[in-house]
Amino acid sequence: MKKYKVCVCGATGSVGQRFIQLLSKHPWFDVEVVMASERSEGKKYEDVVSWFISDKPPEDVAELTVEPLDINVLKKYDVDLVFSALPSAVAGSFEEELAKAGYPVASNASAHRKDPDVPVMIPEVNADHMQLIEVQKKNRKWDGFIVTEPNCTTTGMVMALKPIYDSFGIKRVIVTTMQALSGAGYRGVPSMAIIDNVIPYIKGEEEKVENETLKLLGKFNGNGITYADLKVTASCNRVFVLDGHLESMFIEMERSAEPEEVAEVLSNFKAEPQELNLPMAPKNPIIVLEGEDRPQPRLDRWAGEPELARGMAVSVGRIRKDPALENGIKMMVLSHNTVRGAAGESILNAELAIAQKYIS
Amino acid sequence: MKKYKVCVCGATGSVGQRFIQLLSKHPWFDVEVVMASERSEGKKYEDVVSWFISDKPPEDVAELTVEPLDINVLKKYDVDLVFSALPSAVAGSFEEELAKAGYPVASNASAHRKDPDVPVMIPEVNADHMQLIEVQKKNRKWDGFIVTEPNCTTTGMVMALKPIYDSFGIKRVIVTTMQALSGAGYRGVPSMAIIDNVIPYIKGEEEKVENETLKLLGKFNGNGITYADLKVTASCNRVFVLDGHLESMFIEMERSAEPEEVAEVLSNFKAEPQELNLPMAPKNPIIVLEGEDRPQPRLDRWAGEPELARGMAVSVGRIRKDPALENGIKMMVLSHNTVRGAAGESILNAELAIAQKYIS
Amino acid sequence: MKKYKVCVCGATGSVGQRFIQLLSKHPWFDVEVVMASERSEGKKYEDVVSWFISDKPPEDVAELTVEPLDINVLKKYDVDLVFSALPSAVAGSFEEELAKAGYPVASNASAHRKDPDVPVMIPEVNADHMQLIEVQKKNRKWDGFIVTEPNCTTTGMVMALKPIYDSFGIKRVIVTTMQALSGAGYRGVPSMAIIDNVIPYIKGEEEKVENETLKLLGKFNGNGITYADLKVTASCNRVFVLDGHLESMFIEMERSAEPEEVAEVLSNFKAEPQELNLPMAPKNPIIVLEGEDRPQPRLDRWAGEPELARGMAVSVGRIRKDPALENGIKMMVLSHNTVRGAAGESILNAELAIAQKYIS
Amino acid sequence: MKKYKVCVCGATGSVGQRFIQLLSKHPWFDVEVVMASERSEGKKYEDVVSWFISDKPPEDVAELTVEPLDINVLKKYDVDLVFSALPSAVAGSFEEELAKAGYPVASNASAHRKDPDVPVMIPEVNADHMQLIEVQKKNRKWDGFIVTEPNCTTTGMVMALKPIYDSFGIKRVIVTTMQALSGAGYRGVPSMAIIDNVIPYIKGEEEKVENETLKLLGKFNGNGITYADLKVTASCNRVFVLDGHLESMFIEMERSAEPEEVAEVLSNFKAEPQELNLPMAPKNPIIVLEGEDRPQPRLDRWAGEPELARGMAVSVGRIRKDPALENGIKMMVLSHNTVRGAAGESILNAELAIAQKYIS
Repeated sequence: MKKYKVCVCGATGSVGQRFIQLLSKHPWFDVEVVMASERSEGKKYEDVVSWFISDKPPEDVAELTVEPLDINVLKKYDVDLVFSALPSAVAGSFEEELAKAGYPVASNASAHRKDPDVPVMIPEVNADHMQLIEVQKKNRKWDGFIVTEPNCTTTGMVMALKPIYDSFGIKRVIVTTMQALSGAGYRGVPSMAIIDNVIPYIKGEEEKVENETLKLLGKFNGNGITYADLKVTASCNRVFVLDGHLESMFIEMERSAEPEEVAEVLSNFKAEPQELNLPMAPKNPIIVLEGEDRPQPRLDRWAGEPELARGMAVSVGRIRKDPALENGIKMMVLSHNTVRGAAGESILNAELAIAQKYIS
Repeated sequence: MKKYKVCVCGATGSVGQRFIQLLSKHPWFDVEVVMASERSEGKKYEDVVSWFISDKPPEDVAELTVEPLDINVLKKYDVDLVFSALPSAVAGSFEEELAKAGYPVASNASAHRKDPDVPVMIPEVNADHMQLIEVQKKNRKWDGFIVTEPNCTTTGMVMALKPIYDSFGIKRVIVTTMQALSGAGYRGVPSMAIIDNVIPYIKGEEEKVENETLKLLGKFNGNGITYADLKVTASCNRVFVLDGHLESMFIEMERSAEPEEVAEVLSNFKAEPQELNLPMAPKNPIIVLEGEDRPQPRLDRWAGEPELARGMAVSVGRIRKDPALENGIKMMVLSHNTVRGAAGESILNAELAIAQKYIS
Repeated sequence: MKKYKVCVCGATGSVGQRFIQLLSKHPWFDVEVVMASERSEGKKYEDVVSWFISDKPPEDVAELTVEPLDINVLKKYDVDLVFSALPSAVAGSFEEELAKAGYPVASNASAHRKDPDVPVMIPEVNADHMQLIEVQKKNRKWDGFIVTEPNCTTTGMVMALKPIYDSFGIKRVIVTTMQALSGAGYRGVPSMAIIDNVIPYIKGEEEKVENETLKLLGKFNGNGITYADLKVTASCNRVFVLDGHLESMFIEMERSAEPEEVAEVLSNFKAEPQELNLPMAPKNPIIVLEGEDRPQPRLDRWAGEPELARGMAVSVGRIRKDPALENGIKMMVLSHNTVRGAAGESILNAELAIAQKYIS
Repeated sequence: MKKYKVCVCGATGSVGQRFIQLLSKHPWFDVEVVMASERSEGKKYEDVVSWFISDKPPEDVAELTVEPLDINVLKKYDVDLVFSALPSAVAGSFEEELAKAGYPVASNASAHRKDPDVPVMIPEVNADHMQLIEVQKKNRKWDGFIVTEPNCTTTGMVMALKPIYDSFGIKRVIVTTMQALSGAGYRGVPSMAIIDNVIPYIKGEEEKVENETLKLLGKFNGNGITYADLKVTASCNRVFVLDGHLESMFIEMERSAEPEEVAEVLSNFKAEPQELNLPMAPKNPIIVLEGEDRPQPRLDRWAGEPELARGMAVSVGRIRKDPALENGIKMMVLSHNTVRGAAGESILNAELAIAQKYIS
């Protein structure tokens, strides 16, 4: 099979690093170009990155020269596909420029998530939304396109909601999150702010969770997405954990179901990525844990098989009858925020776009 | 004013240490006796305690000999009043024995909280429940009595709910907690379990929150407590914070209210302890914080004035309209789990009992 | 007694905040002006500071408007004395400008520490070095002057070395430090860098410890300082602690001494600040702890009496015979890096300068 | 090749878990039996272990029944070799019993390290000491034998010292350690003790480092070990790190050497395990890092190639000229305390014993 030449934009940040790590072992993609802000331009990747994952970045990428955000560089290296981990402020216009110039862009930025013709994808949840690409290309007269993914917090939550939504219906979701440091970027949370502490606020996060959920669970109507009809409320917190967002969810379902039924529906969940056997797709996208004190971020964030899909499965535990909600269920959900919630998800989106022939 | 001679049972644990710290500056009480498990018996307090609060325990208590759980010791020292921070397994029978022998017992243990004739007190919330003492003494033919307090998690939450309950009515409360290490006791949470982690389970905690709330907001009916009619659901987590339980609350009220109205009702809240000017009663029992990222455990757990009441006020922040609940409000609540939620509360209970003439 | 009007430069940083906290209770000084970088200029102090100490800054300072680094502001407010917590890059020239204009400057910056006519002070260690002020004023034709203090790490160490140096002589000191996050400033250490980690490097720190120690233990020779003749080597590490630098010291003495003798010499140590009864001077500048596992940063960093001198005493523990060094002693030393090692030390320097009539 | 049937004693503790993890992928060994204390006896391994490494223990071991410490069990399962992670109090007599009954025992316990006829092994450092096995068997009339390894702290340090000792000679070593939580066992360090703190004491550790180093660098003299003639002093601390002991070392060499020369000697170091190509032997036992702030526990603790040898290499960084010691060098050393410092080392010892025909 042909290997696609890819560029990672924003390659030095905490999500950018996950892109580099995950792509280094990927059977379909070769990282040819890394782009980052002016500060790093022209230097070797390993010399500018504060690599936080392990002792050092993968050898082949370590040696690459960091390039500026410039389309001409992509042409020079004959790049097929761009992954974007750019900060939203920069992502907005540069991603448009890329798509206009014919590049498929799999983006982790929030800049275009609200555009009605841009798909916000979790391949297991809304593979049909990929059809928005055609609407987008037509609307904007672009040769390329932008495909995005939801906020890292929304991702884990909606993965766990989807099978419940399909089987029992959902009227209301109340969620409190305990989110990892890496979600804020390498310099996002000063150690003096978080030591012996929890920070009960993440700018813009609650609105994202409340809105994106409706789009993700919505249906493609030929022209756009008809949003799902349920109510969502979120309260978001930062805790002293490196990776892995933990979410405490209370769900009011349309029909009553025992915790065992919910567990079964979650455990059995498979979707298009599993059928297509995509490389980053975990065999079981949702893993139901039995331990009374699980999932836990440090222990469970790397859930997912096979090896390449580690961190791509969502773990669910403590599924209980809720005493206060009608047809209520409460449960804990954990997902790896920079893998399933960011870089891994973008790669899975690109895989799906390839499988669905949006990228050739 | 006469100073009461007091005994602290379970004086070496994490709540026991708070008792010692708070009582050492208290104008009404003198610690005459400290009791603890057999392991410590006969040794000097400072030699057996793993004092986690500061460099060393208060001087006068440091020198006391740790006594066994034996009523004769109390008689010998002419003790007026007993504070109990005993583990529930031990507390049950020993506290009964004490009450039978004529001692007032202000207990932090959960052993008797469900007894229908034992008051579970937050003096600002249900001062009228103290009348249960008379029922209890009559029922059990005791000269002394037991007064308890709710679970540390329930305490902060119900403090914040009370003014809302009175002003707007409450139909439903959904709460997710992020609880401090000290709530589990000094050896409760191994560091290897919590490093880079959150533990989404605390044994028995959710049931306590769900039940005790109804008792606390209930009414004394001459013979017992008529429980309040609202629905409560909780999900409890342990985070890497030394002291201070943070709670994410979603409240469905009976009547609609703007966040500003809720804030005002909370800020203005005063109750019997404030009117009686009890030493441990904070001038403002609830402090509404304006910062968009508050309350935070490390910064706000010591809220409360004057000096003696530090840690006795509950901090509330991020009061927002809830988009998913009818007449919904969401907010963050913080309280010091071993002060307001444990030792400080017991002392305030004793103060109230004295003011109400149940202790002479 | 007259109260001195003071200005704090760099008032929003982690050391600046300690200045504000400590000065707010100080009997001799009133904070009239706070200065900080352009970003904060013109705004209310409480609105720009990330106050990390407690719930909020002291009320009177909270309301002050942050001023730019401009001498005219000082004149306007009739300031008597300037405390500087400026970053070294800025401190160098602005402090000179201030001294030239006649202001006494008590600085925490490293910019002028190596100047041969600028005293680097630990009042308990080298009160005689204050005489350099006269040399400095004469050399530079200044009406004001600059007095500095050593690096925070050097401070704790040299405090503990001084009595040993005087009593037994010291030939060699080998020190490994475990330093607190606050030493790097509020944004200095990203949480992602330090979680589950130690960072074995602090830029420039080891050289400072190795050099400043010799100046501090040196003698004023009428014209400058004759450096002490001993050897010092340091290895500096950042650990996950909010405040309090812990140091593991190995000392080769000139004469042999038992650990008990060393402990006695340390415990009995008093110096000029104690004799002058300066407000920030701890009654016992060095506290020898007996516990086999002390000093510990969280428990012992606030050592020092009376109340105003909390955090000004240095704690020493685990004084042991060293099996590898001649006349060797090993011990652990702890000091509060932003109190004794920074803001508190500057204030004590100012107190000493007043007592010695360098400030009127 | 034949696979050896092995038993792991003390299989549920933090070192025991590493044994299980490492052995599950080992080409020579099959875990047939897991033994642990009475509390766990008769239950499934996965039901009694607080598995702290990842989501769950390896599948084949998870299902094993935990057996009591009973030699008959070993016979029943036809075990070839025993790995011991028993607490020292229990290890002493049970390991003797095993050796007497003919079993080779590779032990991580300290119980027999001081026995003159028991080898304390780091295969890269003192492969010749294995000959003590013959002395031991003869002395004690045993069919089996006990081979031990040094304390986890000593191991990393002596690995790094060995090439320096051989090339330049060593007169004196001064070391301060910053040790990981896992070194104290799963329940060893309460989270309340270590939050925002360092504990400057580890019971018995300094003596072990000071003594074992001399034995390890000593020579087999036909009958026992002639200890090396150098001086060692240690000061040991517990820090908030999950795995990985970091050590700050100051070395007085016999001959002068530049840091570059020391780095070269360390980088080039290979020994018998590398020559024998043992499975757990890292290709490069010592890795010299160039980053000015390395090694760091979280980033570098898993050093070692190939895959099976991850965590078996020792990382060295910051090699500097020492300004205070004659022919002095200072450097930072990191090793994985439960892999190279415990379970991995025992397995490497067993591999060496097999290669040297002490086990058949």
